[in-house]
Amino acid sequence: MKIAFIGLGAMGYPMARHLAKQHELRVWNRTRSVAERFAGEERCTLAASLDECADAAAIITIVPTSREVDEIVDEIAPRLREGTLWIDCTSGDPVTSRQTARRLGELGVELVDAPVTGGTPGAEAGSLTVMIGGSEGGFRRAEEICRAFGKKIIHVGEVGFGHAIKAASNTMLAANMWAAAECLLSLKKMGMDLKTAFEVINAGSGRSNASENLLPKRILDGEWPVTFKLGLLDKDVRIAASTAHAQHLSLPLLSLTSQLYTAAHHALGGEADYIEAVKYAARMSGEEW
Amino acid sequence: MKIAFIGLGAMGYPMARHLAKQHELRVWNRTRSVAERFAGEERCTLAASLDECADAAAIITIVPTSREVDEIVDEIAPRLREGTLWIDCTSGDPVTSRQTARRLGELGVELVDAPVTGGTPGAEAGSLTVMIGGSEGGFRRAEEICRAFGKKIIHVGEVGFGHAIKAASNTMLAANMWAAAECLLSLKKMGMDLKTAFEVINAGSGRSNASENLLPKRILDGEWPVTFKLGLLDKDVRIAASTAHAQHLSLPLLSLTSQLYTAAHHALGGEADYIEAVKYAARMSGEEW
Amino acid sequence: MKIAFIGLGAMGYPMARHLAKQHELRVWNRTRSVAERFAGEERCTLAASLDECADAAAIITIVPTSREVDEIVDEIAPRLREGTLWIDCTSGDPVTSRQTARRLGELGVELVDAPVTGGTPGAEAGSLTVMIGGSEGGFRRAEEICRAFGKKIIHVGEVGFGHAIKAASNTMLAANMWAAAECLLSLKKMGMDLKTAFEVINAGSGRSNASENLLPKRILDGEWPVTFKLGLLDKDVRIAASTAHAQHLSLPLLSLTSQLYTAAHHALGGEADYIEAVKYAARMSGEEW
Amino acid sequence: MKIAFIGLGAMGYPMARHLAKQHELRVWNRTRSVAERFAGEERCTLAASLDECADAAAIITIVPTSREVDEIVDEIAPRLREGTLWIDCTSGDPVTSRQTARRLGELGVELVDAPVTGGTPGAEAGSLTVMIGGSEGGFRRAEEICRAFGKKIIHVGEVGFGHAIKAASNTMLAANMWAAAECLLSLKKMGMDLKTAFEVINAGSGRSNASENLLPKRILDGEWPVTFKLGLLDKDVRIAASTAHAQHLSLPLLSLTSQLYTAAHHALGGEADYIEAVKYAARMSGEEW
Repeated sequence: MKIAFIGLGAMGYPMARHLAKQHELRVWNRTRSVAERFAGEERCTLAASLDECADAAAIITIVPTSREVDEIVDEIAPRLREGTLWIDCTSGDPVTSRQTARRLGELGVELVDAPVTGGTPGAEAGSLTVMIGGSEGGFRRAEEICRAFGKKIIHVGEVGFGHAIKAASNTMLAANMWAAAECLLSLKKMGMDLKTAFEVINAGSGRSNASENLLPKRILDGEWPVTFKLGLLDKDVRIAASTAHAQHLSLPLLSLTSQLYTAAHHALGGEADYIEAVKYAARMSGEEW
Repeated sequence: MKIAFIGLGAMGYPMARHLAKQHELRVWNRTRSVAERFAGEERCTLAASLDECADAAAIITIVPTSREVDEIVDEIAPRLREGTLWIDCTSGDPVTSRQTARRLGELGVELVDAPVTGGTPGAEAGSLTVMIGGSEGGFRRAEEICRAFGKKIIHVGEVGFGHAIKAASNTMLAANMWAAAECLLSLKKMGMDLKTAFEVINAGSGRSNASENLLPKRILDGEWPVTFKLGLLDKDVRIAASTAHAQHLSLPLLSLTSQLYTAAHHALGGEADYIEAVKYAARMSGEEW
Repeated sequence: MKIAFIGLGAMGYPMARHLAKQHELRVWNRTRSVAERFAGEERCTLAASLDECADAAAIITIVPTSREVDEIVDEIAPRLREGTLWIDCTSGDPVTSRQTARRLGELGVELVDAPVTGGTPGAEAGSLTVMIGGSEGGFRRAEEICRAFGKKIIHVGEVGFGHAIKAASNTMLAANMWAAAECLLSLKKMGMDLKTAFEVINAGSGRSNASENLLPKRILDGEWPVTFKLGLLDKDVRIAASTAHAQHLSLPLLSLTSQLYTAAHHALGGEADYIEAVKYAARMSGEEW
Repeated sequence: MKIAFIGLGAMGYPMARHLAKQHELRVWNRTRSVAERFAGEERCTLAASLDECADAAAIITIVPTSREVDEIVDEIAPRLREGTLWIDCTSGDPVTSRQTARRLGELGVELVDAPVTGGTPGAEAGSLTVMIGGSEGGFRRAEEICRAFGKKIIHVGEVGFGHAIKAASNTMLAANMWAAAECLLSLKKMGMDLKTAFEVINAGSGRSNASENLLPKRILDGEWPVTFKLGLLDKDVRIAASTAHAQHLSLPLLSLTSQLYTAAHHALGGEADYIEAVKYAARMSGEEW
C-alpha cells in the first residue's frame, strides 16, 4: 500500500521502519536531514514537500501535538483524495481531533486517532499498544496497517477516544507516581530505609506500576535515565485536564496533579525525564532523594 | 506463653483464634459479650478487667486508634511487669506510638508497633502481613508470636515505623483509587465503554492495584461489598497527613487526598465501604457510576 | 446613533433602558416576549430577526457566554457593514474573544470586549464599572456609548483583557470567600461566637470584601438573597482557569477554587446565589451554618 | 504590679517597654544580652534565671511557639504561686494552649492566651490589637495589663480561642494573597499593565487587604521590605491546618494554602518577608514579578 509517514521522532522513526518493510513508504519530517537519513537507510521515498504526501492511500502522523496535525491538514487539504485513511498516532487531544476529523470527513478522508504506548523499546520491537478511536470500518483498515508496529491494537470507541484514554492513562501514572513520592518522602524524612519501604508497599494494596517498576530504580539505585520526556507527560496530563474542563467536571486531584507537573516542567525543563518530577516533589519540602 | 489479647474486632477476633491454639490466652474486649463468646468458643480465659491483662508475658492490642491504646496503658500501667512485650497491632499513629513506647520503656516494658494488612480473609487464614517497628530484640520476640496469624513479618525499623508505613501504604491506595476514579469519570462522561477503558489502562503504565483489582468489580459489575470501612481508611490517610505535618513537609497531593476522603466520610458515613469513596468523587461532578 | 442591543437579561434590560433614552435603539432577545415588552415600554424598534441588527453603527451584545456571541456573529456576519463597532458586554472568555475579534476585523468591524460589574442595582442606576479591551480608538468610541450605563469606564488594554480582568477579579472574590468560609467553619466548630470572629477578622489583615460585606449578612443574620447566580460565578472562575491553562501556568489555588465552585454548582444548582457556595463548603465537613 | 516578661523579640521588646513605665517589671530572654540591654535601658530588673520569674503576680510570655511556652512552664511550675495570671502573647496553637491551661489550672494559675496583631509599629506605638481567650475574670485582669501596649482588646472566648482566631485571620491573609498573586500572574503573562489591573480589582468585589495594601507596593514599586517573617506566617497557617485536622474537618483550600506556604518557606527561608511568598507562586510557573 502507498503510505505517507509524517514525523520521524523517537517513536516515529522505528515505527516507520517496520512499515517500510511491508509497504511503499514515503516519509516527511520537519527536520529534513532525519527524513533523508531514514530514506537512505530504509530505501524508501523522501517526500520533497508535505504536498507529496497527499495522494497516499493512508497517511500516518506522529507529531508533538494536535496543533501540528492541524497545520499539516491545513497545508495538504486541497490535494487530499477521497477515500484516504488518516491515522493520527500523535498523543493529541480529543477535542481538537474531533474537529479535525469533521474537516477531513467533509473531504471524504477518514481520521482515526491511534496513539501508542510502549516507549521506544516497544516501537523498535514492533510491540506497541495502539488505542484506536474511529468508526468500525476505519478501525479495521487502521488495524491492518498498525499491525506492522503494534502488538495489541484496541478499538476504544469513537474518534478522539484514543487520545482521551491515552491522556487518562498517563494522568493516572502521573498521579500515582507523585502520590507515592510524597508518601515515601515522609517515610524517608522519618529515617525509614526506603528499600524496606518499597518491599512493604509493593506487597500491599497501595502498589502501582509507579511504585513497582518506575520509582525503585531511581530512588534506590540513583539511576535517572531519560526514557520519556517530562514535557510530554505534562502535555498528556494537561490534555486530560482540559478534556475534563470541557465536560464541566469537578476533578480536584487530576487538576492539582496537572498544576504540579507543570510546575515541575517549569523547574526542570521539558527535556528532563518524566520521573524526575519526583525530584521537584521533594524540593517543595526542601528535600532531595 | 501467657498472652493477653485486647480488642476482638473484625480483625482481632480471628487473629486471637490463631493465638489461642498455641498460647495460654486471656482476652478482653470493650463490648464484653464478644469476649464472652470468644472465651466460650476458644476455651480460653476471659479477663474480668483490663487489670487482669497486666501480668501477661506479652500484651497484644488491636483497637480503633492510638488514643484507645493510651487509655489502656493509663489504666494498667501500675500493674505492668518489667520485661513484658507489648505488641500494638492497632493501625495507630507514629507520633503517639513513640510517646507511648517511651512511657512503657520507663516501666521496663517494650512496645513494638505491629499493624497488619490482608483484611479479614487474611486474618482468618493466618496469612496477614505484619509490619513491625521496634528494636531488633523486640522484633525477634514479636515475630515469633505474630507467626500465629502472619505470613510475611517484616522489621521496618524503629518504633512507630510500622504505623507510618501502614498509613503511607493506605494513603497511596487512597490516592491511586481517587485519581483513577476521576480519570474514569471523564472517560465515562465522554461516552467511552468503561470495560474497554479498564482493559487499556490495566495494560498500560497508569495501572495500580486500585485499577486492576478494586475498581472494576464495583464500577463494571455494580457490586459494592463492604470489605474495609471508609472511616478506617480516612483515619489512615489522616495519620499520614498529620505525620507529614509534624515533619514540616509540603505534600499537596497527600494533603488534598486527606481532605477528599474526609469529605467522603462525612457524606457517606464511616461504615460505608472504603471504595464507595469513588461515589462521592462522582457526585462532586453531579455524576454517578 | 443607530444601536442594536442584543440580550435583554437581568443586566441587559436596565442597561438598554439607559441607551434607549439617548439613541435610536433596536433590540433583540432570544426569548422574544421580553424584547416585545422592552420595545413597548421604551418605545424602540424590535428587531424581527438578528439580521436586522446587522446594519447598526454599534452592536452591543450581553449574552450568557462567548459561544452565544460567536453564534450571533456567524448568523449576521454576511450583512455586517464596515466601520461598525461591536461592544461585547458578555462576561466572556479572552481566548474566544480574540478569535472573534480577528474574524470581525477581516470584515472591517471592530470588537471591543466590555464586561461590566456592579450588579443589577448598578445597571439600573447607570453606575456600572465597564472594563474595556480594544484599540485606543475602539475604546474611545465605546466609552462614549457606555457612558449611558457606566460610571467608571476603564481601558484595560487589548481585546480580551476586559474579559480577563473580570474573570480574574471574580476568581479572587471566589477564593477569598471560600477561604474565609473554611476558616470560619473551624472557629464555629470550636465554639467561637462568629459575630466576635468577624469583628476580629475585619479589624485585621485577613479581611476582604467577602469577609466584610458578603458573608456576615448570610452567616450571622441567616439571610441568603439571590444577588448573582452561582452558575455565573462558576463560569467566571472557569474562564480564569482556562485562560491560565492556555498560558501554561501552574496556579494550584486558582485551579482548586475552580473545582470547588464547580462541585458547589453541581450540588446546589446554577440558579442558587453565588454566596451559597459556602453552604457546600460547610457540607464537605458535615456541617452547616 | 510585679510582672515577669519573658521573650524580648521584635514584638516583645517594645511591648515590655510600655509595661516598664507602669509596673515593676522583671525580664528574661533566651539570648541574655538582649535582656541585659533592656534592663539597662528601661531600668528594670533582669531575672537571673527563669525561676526568678515564678513569683510575679502576672507572667507574660511571647516566644516563638507553644512548645517554648510549655518548656518554660515545665521549668518554673514548682515555684509558681496560686493566683498568678499567665498571659501568653505567643502566636501559639489552641490545642496545646488548652492543655497548658489545664496544667496551670491545677496549680491555681490561670492562663489566658492573648496573641497580638499590629506588627512592630503597633507594638512601638502601644496600639496593638489583643485577642484574649480565657474566663471572664481572666480576661478582665489581663485586659488591664494589656492596656499598656494594646488599643483594641477583645475577649474572643475560652482559652485557646485567641490563638485560633489569630491563626484563622492570618490564614485568610495568606490565602487571599496567594490567590491574588495567581490571578495577577495570569494577567501579567497576558500582557496586561498591572497598575491598571490593581485599579480595577480594588474597585471591585475581589478586593482584599492583600490586594489593596500589601501587593501593589511590592509588585508595582518593586519594594520588598521585611515586615513579618515568612516563617511566622507559615507557622500560623500550619496552626490553622492542624486545628482543622483535630476537628476532623475537610478544608481543601486552607490545606493547600498551608502546603504552598510551607513550600515557599523551604524555598525562600523563614527569614524572608511573608509577602515574598508570591515570588515562589510566580516561580512555580517559571515567572517572576
